[in-house]
Amino acid sequence: MKRNVRVVIWGFGAMGSGMAKMLLKKKGVDIVGVCARGQKIGKSMYELLEMERGDRPEVIINPDIEKILTETNPDVCLCATDSFTKEAFPKLKVVLENKVNVISTAEEMAYPYAQDPEVASELDKIAKENGVSILGTGINPGLMMDLLVLCLTGCMEDVEHIEAKRVNSLSPFGPFVMKEQGVGTTVEEFENGVKDGTLSGHVGFAESAAMIADGLGWKIEKFEQQVKPIVTTIDRKSPFGFAKAGDVAGVSMTAQGWVDGDVKIDLIHPQQIEPEMEGTETGDYITIKGNPAIHMANKPEVDGGIGTIAMCVNMIPHIINADAGLKTMIDLPVPRAIMGDFRDFIKIESNCLKE
Amino acid sequence: MKRNVRVVIWGFGAMGSGMAKMLLKKKGVDIVGVCARGQKIGKSMYELLEMERGDRPEVIINPDIEKILTETNPDVCLCATDSFTKEAFPKLKVVLENKVNVISTAEEMAYPYAQDPEVASELDKIAKENGVSILGTGINPGLMMDLLVLCLTGCMEDVEHIEAKRVNSLSPFGPFVMKEQGVGTTVEEFENGVKDGTLSGHVGFAESAAMIADGLGWKIEKFEQQVKPIVTTIDRKSPFGFAKAGDVAGVSMTAQGWVDGDVKIDLIHPQQIEPEMEGTETGDYITIKGNPAIHMANKPEVDGGIGTIAMCVNMIPHIINADAGLKTMIDLPVPRAIMGDFRDFIKIESNCLKE
Repeated sequence: MKRNVRVVIWGFGAMGSGMAKMLLKKKGVDIVGVCARGQKIGKSMYELLEMERGDRPEVIINPDIEKILTETNPDVCLCATDSFTKEAFPKLKVVLENKVNVISTAEEMAYPYAQDPEVASELDKIAKENGVSILGTGINPGLMMDLLVLCLTGCMEDVEHIEAKRVNSLSPFGPFVMKEQGVGTTVEEFENGVKDGTLSGHVGFAESAAMIADGLGWKIEKFEQQVKPIVTTIDRKSPFGFAKAGDVAGVSMTAQGWVDGDVKIDLIHPQQIEPEMEGTETGDYITIKGNPAIHMANKPEVDGGIGTIAMCVNMIPHIINADAGLKTMIDLPVPRAIMGDFRDFIKIESNCLKE
Repeated sequence: MKRNVRVVIWGFGAMGSGMAKMLLKKKGVDIVGVCARGQKIGKSMYELLEMERGDRPEVIINPDIEKILTETNPDVCLCATDSFTKEAFPKLKVVLENKVNVISTAEEMAYPYAQDPEVASELDKIAKENGVSILGTGINPGLMMDLLVLCLTGCMEDVEHIEAKRVNSLSPFGPFVMKEQGVGTTVEEFENGVKDGTLSGHVGFAESAAMIADGLGWKIEKFEQQVKPIVTTIDRKSPFGFAKAGDVAGVSMTAQGWVDGDVKIDLIHPQQIEPEMEGTETGDYITIKGNPAIHMANKPEVDGGIGTIAMCVNMIPHIINADAGLKTMIDLPVPRAIMGDFRDFIKIESNCLKE
């Protein structure tokens, strides 16, 4: 009988703990270690998740990743620690050098060739030297504004222009996101926040545009990105946010990719509290000009948190099965929900589940 | 410099000739041979397509596939000859035994494990013995009611129920399709046509359901399919069809896949002339219950003809790059429109473009 797939989780915030909860509902897969810092050290994963351990072996949060990887011999490590490739790199390197496959939630890792081609090459080299593979994924970048776009172009003879729009509500989010996205600030405060970097907005447009372009065989000549306040004309109130008329209800990000002298890729991602109050319908929208044209809408939008958690967990079999090196979503088979036993998705050739 | 990718087309009806037209607009790829029968033999492909040959070498339609494959040494053969795996098998075997990769338009070949597991195993074995790969694809089965469904589940933690609905208009089609789909018949004539097999309806539901189930790790316990007339309450007229009130305006196919005692997969595919006249909005619709839920619509639907042509052409690099054996859409990277030079999509390892 095959042993279960073994997973280590590095980073135990909203993403890491969400992946743990999801994995605990699945068959043929065990969480064998969790690496995190601060107050969590020494605590039981089950205690932190407020879930029953049942017959499962205890998992105690440990800050020493090398110790965890050596002692637990996992098949994959889910790294939910960073947004940027350069910051994630030293951590990813440690995991790869321990001959463990990696799935990273870092937005830039969804297509590191876009902004860090040298780091990407280095990761590819390290992964190959150690006979393992590494992937960055999530809901966006990773699916809704890039991979799904490409999948839909599969039935097209010719693509003239792509618009991917993700319109989501910030109303379910807490005080941290309200602050991070500038909800309730004046327009001037917002502009200052963008200038001094305290207002980050969405990370991943450069990655989505590059993935689309490389997927199709387009060369991006120029890439531009804008961060603008969404100014409300009426008072808007959400559980943790309030924007009075004339102030900022959220942040609108846009980006353009030029190909052959024209804007051929438009990315649009407005995030705000109570979008319905001014007639904005949330959703994921993909509009592709060409033959045939595509007019796709998924309403309401896929929740970013659950979506990213699910993408990372669902790609586990694909990254175990992959040949060695740095992979992106366009190199691997389509993601899909793993509803059966994880072991049944591991190719016989990968041979890793024999005890 | 790499030589161009070499393609042979077998079957030169609407699909085969459509693929030829599409390929002639692309870079880094040549049509080196066309195999067809009857009146087309001996004619120039360019003449049949009513297109300028320009500097390209002549391609004369030839009925002898072995001769074509031996003389032209293609990288891939697009087989647009059949709908059913068993009927396509002897042709696919010939191509594989000539060590040529295959893409088949046969609907059942999109997932031959569904109805012909033994033939599927045989094809896999022949392909492996000859070091080449084989894929069946198209718009449906192949994308809209199966692969796209799976791709959307990638961001889901849990899937409870899937409904894939493709609502299309038959109005653009000619007299042959009108007859085949029973447009304008009485209900009684329609029912008799279903009984005696002259009314085939859509081929591919068993394949779509099996692809979805295997993709997710569900086991289908029972599969049922229904073919029903779409009876119009008003007179409907299209360029080549007419259905008077009370008669048949098209055919509605439905199928259900049972998993764990419940219907978890519902496939719905009504095709009719002038659907708008009775308030039917054409489109591709995917509704998935689970966490998070998906409510996708693509309106209007992707044209079946162009969609199938594009899927087959766009998968050429993927099937050349694939390791040997029978592949399905869930084994390969996502399809995407090939807008650049075909040669740039061929992996260095496959090494096939060196002269």
